[in-house]
Amino acid sequence: MAKKTKRAARKSNGSSAEYKAVIDELVMGNRILYDQGVVDGYGHVSARDPRNPERFLLSRARAPGLVQPSDIMEFGMDGEPIRDDGRPIYSERFIHSEVYKARGDVAAVIHSHSPAVIPFSVTQVPLRAVHNTASFLAAGVPVFEMRRVAGMTDKLVTDAMRGRALAETLGDRPVALLRGHGDVVVGPDLRRTVARAIYTEVNARMLLQAVMLGGPITFIDPEESKQIEASRGTQVTGHGVDRVWQMWLEEALPGASERTR
Amino acid sequence: MAKKTKRAARKSNGSSAEYKAVIDELVMGNRILYDQGVVDGYGHVSARDPRNPERFLLSRARAPGLVQPSDIMEFGMDGEPIRDDGRPIYSERFIHSEVYKARGDVAAVIHSHSPAVIPFSVTQVPLRAVHNTASFLAAGVPVFEMRRVAGMTDKLVTDAMRGRALAETLGDRPVALLRGHGDVVVGPDLRRTVARAIYTEVNARMLLQAVMLGGPITFIDPEESKQIEASRGTQVTGHGVDRVWQMWLEEALPGASERTR
Amino acid sequence: MAKKTKRAARKSNGSSAEYKAVIDELVMGNRILYDQGVVDGYGHVSARDPRNPERFLLSRARAPGLVQPSDIMEFGMDGEPIRDDGRPIYSERFIHSEVYKARGDVAAVIHSHSPAVIPFSVTQVPLRAVHNTASFLAAGVPVFEMRRVAGMTDKLVTDAMRGRALAETLGDRPVALLRGHGDVVVGPDLRRTVARAIYTEVNARMLLQAVMLGGPITFIDPEESKQIEASRGTQVTGHGVDRVWQMWLEEALPGASERTR
Amino acid sequence: MAKKTKRAARKSNGSSAEYKAVIDELVMGNRILYDQGVVDGYGHVSARDPRNPERFLLSRARAPGLVQPSDIMEFGMDGEPIRDDGRPIYSERFIHSEVYKARGDVAAVIHSHSPAVIPFSVTQVPLRAVHNTASFLAAGVPVFEMRRVAGMTDKLVTDAMRGRALAETLGDRPVALLRGHGDVVVGPDLRRTVARAIYTEVNARMLLQAVMLGGPITFIDPEESKQIEASRGTQVTGHGVDRVWQMWLEEALPGASERTR
Repeated sequence: MAKKTKRAARKSNGSSAEYKAVIDELVMGNRILYDQGVVDGYGHVSARDPRNPERFLLSRARAPGLVQPSDIMEFGMDGEPIRDDGRPIYSERFIHSEVYKARGDVAAVIHSHSPAVIPFSVTQVPLRAVHNTASFLAAGVPVFEMRRVAGMTDKLVTDAMRGRALAETLGDRPVALLRGHGDVVVGPDLRRTVARAIYTEVNARMLLQAVMLGGPITFIDPEESKQIEASRGTQVTGHGVDRVWQMWLEEALPGASERTR
Repeated sequence: MAKKTKRAARKSNGSSAEYKAVIDELVMGNRILYDQGVVDGYGHVSARDPRNPERFLLSRARAPGLVQPSDIMEFGMDGEPIRDDGRPIYSERFIHSEVYKARGDVAAVIHSHSPAVIPFSVTQVPLRAVHNTASFLAAGVPVFEMRRVAGMTDKLVTDAMRGRALAETLGDRPVALLRGHGDVVVGPDLRRTVARAIYTEVNARMLLQAVMLGGPITFIDPEESKQIEASRGTQVTGHGVDRVWQMWLEEALPGASERTR
Repeated sequence: MAKKTKRAARKSNGSSAEYKAVIDELVMGNRILYDQGVVDGYGHVSARDPRNPERFLLSRARAPGLVQPSDIMEFGMDGEPIRDDGRPIYSERFIHSEVYKARGDVAAVIHSHSPAVIPFSVTQVPLRAVHNTASFLAAGVPVFEMRRVAGMTDKLVTDAMRGRALAETLGDRPVALLRGHGDVVVGPDLRRTVARAIYTEVNARMLLQAVMLGGPITFIDPEESKQIEASRGTQVTGHGVDRVWQMWLEEALPGASERTR
Repeated sequence: MAKKTKRAARKSNGSSAEYKAVIDELVMGNRILYDQGVVDGYGHVSARDPRNPERFLLSRARAPGLVQPSDIMEFGMDGEPIRDDGRPIYSERFIHSEVYKARGDVAAVIHSHSPAVIPFSVTQVPLRAVHNTASFLAAGVPVFEMRRVAGMTDKLVTDAMRGRALAETLGDRPVALLRGHGDVVVGPDLRRTVARAIYTEVNARMLLQAVMLGGPITFIDPEESKQIEASRGTQVTGHGVDRVWQMWLEEALPGASERTR
C-alpha cells in the first residue's frame, strides 16, 4: 500500500458512517443521472471506497435508474469483485478501475451514453465550454478512438488494456468522449462528478444550438474557467453543487431531499 | 410445413407457458414502445407464435399504449385472423405476414412512425449507425418507395402485394424505412426487436445532430458492427437487452419489472 | 335559415344527447390539445352547435387545459355570446365565427400557438406535407399577414373584419398560419380537427428536421393525399382517428378512454 | 426617500394582506419557472416589497423549485439582508438590488439560465421577437459582457459594481442576456415578469428554428409590439397573463389554481 493510500485510509478511519453515506450517495447519483437523461438503461457510476482507496464501489450490472443500496459491490484496482457472489457485473468496469489507478485525485467516475454529447464524438467539432456551469470543459475534451489502440473491436472497454488506453486519453482532465459510444466524467467527489456529467450534457445542447445559429462563438476563457472552478471548490450548504443536488434529488426520489437536510 | 418449421414447432412443444410468456412480452413491448415515444397512437408490434411458426400474434386494431393481453389475436401467413370474432384488425397487418413469410430468422416485427427516423425517409441522407447501441444499422437501411411498385396510393401496406414488396426492400436487413410514413424493424426475438426500434430512433436523433454540427462523420464500421452484434447475441440476466428492458418496463408499467425477476 | 341549415337542424333532431356529447368532446379536445403541446395557456377550440348550425360552442376565456363542461358557452355568427352572463370571453372568437360563416362544411375550429408550426409563419419556407398523418396539408398552407389588411395592429383577430380576412386567406383549406402568432385548423368534426391540429405540429417538426438534413425533400403527392384523406373519411371504431383519440384521451384524462367505449 | 418612493409606500398602506399575497406569488413564481424549464436548480426570483419600495423580497439560497414561503427574506438596496439569521443567501443578489435601484418602474426581477436563450448570448445573432407573446423583446435584447467592465472573472454578479454594470446594459429594457451565463428579466409586476421570462425562452426556441429553416425572417415590428404590449397592460381575470398563470400554476402546484380564484 502506497504512502498516499495509507494517509487516505487513516483519514477515513472509523468510517462506517462515511461508508454508508457514500453508498447512499451512489444510489442517489445513479437515480439522478437517469432522471436527468444523462444515462438511460446503460451507464454506470462508481465512487472510491472511503475506507480503502485501492477499492471502489459500483452497482452490480443493473440499469442505473433501478440501483438500490444492496446492489453496490466492491471492486479492486484490477476490476475484480472483492466478493464474487455470482451476481452479474458490468463488463466495462475497467473504465473505473483504470481511472482510479491513474488518478489519485479522483473519487468518482461516471460512464454514460450522454445523448447530446455523443454527436461531438463522431464529428470534428470539439466539445467546448460555453456555459458557466460547464466551465471545467475549458481544460479540453479529448475523444478516445478505440481503433487507434485495439483495431476493429466491439468498442467496449472490457479489459484493463482498453481501460488504461482510455485513462491515458483522459489524462488529467475531467471529461473524455468515447467515439460513437459516450463519455467518462471524473471528479473529486460524487456530487460534483454528477453535476459535471449533467452540465456536460447541458453544455453540449447549448453548443449545438450556438453552432446552428452560425458565426463565431464566444467560449468560456481558460482564465474565467479557473476562477469559476475555484469558487466551486468548497461544498457549502445552499450553494453550488449542494443547491442543484437537492433539486435533482427531489425530482429523482421525491421526498428524499428532506432526508438529507 | 417446411422442415425448419417442424423443428421450431417441436422445439416449442408443451409451449403453453411459453405462449403465455410471449403474450405478456408482446403487451410489454407495446407499452414500452409507446412510453419511449417510438409509436404514438399508431404503430403495431407482433411476435411469431411459439406454438406454430406459420402464425403470428398481434393486437386487435388498438393504440399500442392501450394494448392488453386479451387484445392479442392470432393471424396466418396471409394476414388472415385465425378466429375472426368481428373485432377491428390492423389494415396494415400484411407488413407482418409478408415479413414472417420471407424471413424464417425473424421472430418479431415492429411497424412505427418513429419520429426522428421519418425525416431520413424523405431526404437523400441515409440513416447510418453512429452509436454502438444501433450498430445493427451498419447493414444499411433501405427506403421503401410505394410509388415504384404501386403508383399513386394511400401509401398504406394494406394487401399482400404491398407487404411483399416491402419485405423485398427489407431483404435480410433488420430495418427498412417507408417513405413519409415510418419504419419496419425485425429481429430474432421480441426484446431485441424492441431494443432495435428504440435505438434506431435514438441513433437517428444523434445522426441529425452530427449532421447539424457539420463536417465528416465517423460511422460505426461494418467490422465493428459485426463484433458488437456478436456480443449481443445471447440473453444474459443483467446484461445487454435484459438490462435496458427492465428499465423500460419499469417506466412503462411501474412495478412490472419486479414481476419479471 | 338557409336550406342547408334546416337540413342540418332536422338531422340533429332530438339532439339533446348529441349536444351533450359535443360538449364532452369539446372538453376532451381542449384537454388533449394541451396535453399534446399544441396549445399552451392560450389557444381555443370550438364546435358548431349540433342543434343550430348558426351557432357554435366555445369555452369562456380560460386556458384550454383547465376547461370544464360548465365553461362552454354558445355564440352566434357575429361572435356574440347568446347568453352574456358576464364571464370573460375570448377576444379572438371572431376567428371561429367568421370561419363558420364562410365554411358550411366546417364543424370544428381550433386556434393555437402550435410551437413547431410558428417558425414556418415567419420564414419563406412553406409548411408542406411530408408524413401520411398530415396529408391534408398537401392542399397548401397559406400564411395570413394582418398588415396586408389592417396595417400595424396588435395582430389579434379581435373583430369581424379581421376574422373575415383570415377566413378568406384560409379559403377552402384545412389549415392557415397567422404570421408570428399561430394557426387555425378546421375540419368536418371535432375529433378529426383535433387530429389535424396535432399532426400539423408533428409534421412541422419532421419537415424542420428534413430541412436540416439538407437536399431535396420528397413531399406527399397531391394525388397520394387525396387517396389518404379518402380512406380517413369514415369514423370506424379502432381505426383512423378513433384509435389515436383513445390514446390521447387516456393521456390527457386518465381513465376517460374507458368511459367512451 | 424619494417622492416616487413615498407615493408607492402610501399606496401600499395597510399592506399586510398585500405583503402576504406577494410572498405567495413569489413562491408560485419560483415553482412555475422551474416547472416550465426556465430555471433549473439555479436562478432566482424577487419582488419589490409592497410595504417599502427600498426593499425587495427574495428566497434564501435555495433551488427555485423547492422554495417555500418561510424561505423568503427581505433585502435592502445594497443587497444586504435586513435580518441576517445566518441562512445562506444568493451570492448574485446584486443583480436584483442594482436593478431595483436603477429602475423605479420595476416590481419584479428574474435571473435564470434559460436554456434556449443562452446560445444567443454566445453568438452574434441578436435575440429578436418573432412571436406575439414575446413582443416586449422588440425593444432590443442587449448582451452583458462582464469582461468589458471587470476583465477576467468568474462571471458571477457577486458585488454592487457588477450589478450596476449589468443594470446599465439593461437600460430601460425588459430583458438582457449575460454572456455564457443566462438572462435577467424585469417587469411591472411578478406575474407579468414570470410570463416574460417564459415567453423569452419560448421565443428563443422559435427563432432558432426559424434560423434553421433559412432565409429572411419576419420579426414583430416595433409598432406592432407597442400595440400588443398596450393591450397587455391591464390584468383582467381570464385574459392575458391571468389566463396562462392559472395554467402554469396548476401544472407546478396541482390544485393551487383553484385556491386563487
